[in-house]
Amino acid sequence: MAVMEAVVVDAEDLRQVIVDALVAHGGTASDARQQAAILVEGDLRGHHSHGVRRLPVLVSRLDNGLIRSGVEPTFDWVTDSVLQVDGHRGFGPSVAFAAIDRIVERAETTGVAVAAISNSNHIGMLAPYIERIVDSGQIAFGFTTSEALVHPWGGARAMVGTNPIGIGMPTGHSPLVLDMSTASVSMGKILDHAAKGEPIPLGWAVDAKGAPTEDAQAAIDGGAISPFGGPKGYALGIALEVIVATLTKSSLGADVRGTLDTTDASSKGDVFIAISLERLGLTGFLPRIRDYLDEVRASNDGAISIPGDRARATRQKRSSEGIPLHRQSWEQALELKEVGPSDV
Amino acid sequence: MAVMEAVVVDAEDLRQVIVDALVAHGGTASDARQQAAILVEGDLRGHHSHGVRRLPVLVSRLDNGLIRSGVEPTFDWVTDSVLQVDGHRGFGPSVAFAAIDRIVERAETTGVAVAAISNSNHIGMLAPYIERIVDSGQIAFGFTTSEALVHPWGGARAMVGTNPIGIGMPTGHSPLVLDMSTASVSMGKILDHAAKGEPIPLGWAVDAKGAPTEDAQAAIDGGAISPFGGPKGYALGIALEVIVATLTKSSLGADVRGTLDTTDASSKGDVFIAISLERLGLTGFLPRIRDYLDEVRASNDGAISIPGDRARATRQKRSSEGIPLHRQSWEQALELKEVGPSDV
Repeated sequence: MAVMEAVVVDAEDLRQVIVDALVAHGGTASDARQQAAILVEGDLRGHHSHGVRRLPVLVSRLDNGLIRSGVEPTFDWVTDSVLQVDGHRGFGPSVAFAAIDRIVERAETTGVAVAAISNSNHIGMLAPYIERIVDSGQIAFGFTTSEALVHPWGGARAMVGTNPIGIGMPTGHSPLVLDMSTASVSMGKILDHAAKGEPIPLGWAVDAKGAPTEDAQAAIDGGAISPFGGPKGYALGIALEVIVATLTKSSLGADVRGTLDTTDASSKGDVFIAISLERLGLTGFLPRIRDYLDEVRASNDGAISIPGDRARATRQKRSSEGIPLHRQSWEQALELKEVGPSDV
Repeated sequence: MAVMEAVVVDAEDLRQVIVDALVAHGGTASDARQQAAILVEGDLRGHHSHGVRRLPVLVSRLDNGLIRSGVEPTFDWVTDSVLQVDGHRGFGPSVAFAAIDRIVERAETTGVAVAAISNSNHIGMLAPYIERIVDSGQIAFGFTTSEALVHPWGGARAMVGTNPIGIGMPTGHSPLVLDMSTASVSMGKILDHAAKGEPIPLGWAVDAKGAPTEDAQAAIDGGAISPFGGPKGYALGIALEVIVATLTKSSLGADVRGTLDTTDASSKGDVFIAISLERLGLTGFLPRIRDYLDEVRASNDGAISIPGDRARATRQKRSSEGIPLHRQSWEQALELKEVGPSDV
């Protein structure tokens, strides 16, 4: 096994390399910019499983026609406050940001607006989308389904997605931005442990018989990731699985495909909800929220984080000092920008 | 310490005794019926902390003017799809059901409708409210704040409510109904352990210094309940704390009062969201949801529950066989119906 050598890359350089790679494989400048921004955000915040490591799969999907660049999503306002979006296999970030901009604008009239997105590709971390809504002074919720990697509580088989939850609350400064998976850990981390031959902590996963395991390889070979927080995390994950699938008319359980593979059309769904504080006459409440969150931060000698704080601190540090990346991820990205789709 | 003797009470008898007690203390027949139904649901489902055990506090609050019976809430549609509700210190269930009936009706036009309720009393378990929405064929979300009993992750002091989450998805039969606290356990259970001198499992609570403790009394004396699922459960709890408080213009953290005490006006908030599948043209999707949930139920030799299944089974059993109650809870209820407020 190769030693994981690190390189430190400037965020702007990383962004440019990703843009170049996507454009070299047929991406439009606009799609490439939005997708690159999302991947760079992943690495800037230390969530490398949502960073440039995803680029090779995205490029292959583009080569294979599973991502179509430059397509215009269809926006259908089913009611004044509910937007159905068909992404027509477009890039996830482009489709999601376009949908979000529309519901944010609409919520200024209707108070609340919902976007239900189908037929769109992987959007990556939820935080940047939640922040787009929060930066407009609105409360944000975001839910997305994903491949079934998690077992139901008491079960052995992967039947539920890692279905992340995003929630945002504007405060005027340092907003609350929650972005968490309903799985106890990412498959990436289990794969890392398996590659290094290291055991995984009990509680991360079960083996093929449903028994909690410390053997990373047993988790991968027919086992499944455990939900976070036991039966409650499972309950949240499966509730969001069925609600997102219904609202977006997309797939369920093992039928969800297309964010990890390079062979199948994406069949997951994304849901965003925006609630305008200004339209509802609630902006006067924000100083109290700020004071409360600052009081929580200051308790226990300042050891407490509000959701979003750590990612913000990591982002700031890496924006100035550069991003530590696996050399392999970086070199792959450099190669991808040199090789057009016809050369693959 | 008294031995906890059990009695088995018929659900209908329990309901009638609670109605009589509330009416004896000035409750209207309608308020008493709705409040009784909610408490009986708690005991029927085995969630005794939300059952008749709550009656003495409710009666005292009624006696003390902290609950006002027969008041009409104020309903203010801020937009077509957002309803602000001032409960005027009314009974929690009466106010919440009235609000829910309005958003369910409205969602049939607008697709989505939100109720934000303030100045209303304790609503108890979320499940019956979620079910009211689900029974109308709509997706349901419910959030409510409560007294600060939970420490922030990494902290020692109780600064966050036990803030439960309710989610419901109709399926045509046996709907998914999630109703869970964001705390690892209820204060009632910790009090029970302390009363019996039994240790509590690690992870339930911390002591006054923020150290995880097995000493129930240490958790009570200046300690705090831990969030479920570690930092993720904390993140959910505090996110809902600030969002519910803002939407309902109600209190935050340690300022939330009035569901456990008999001295303070209720200052928590309740938020419900209803999304109409019919209005959005999504009812055709329900058979797939049903099949998926049944497939999950059947996996691992039928050992898997969908959220709501266990409560439904317990409810059915107790509806026919009677409800096991602590003798003391039952006798208190019987006494309360004999003694009017002037006699207390």
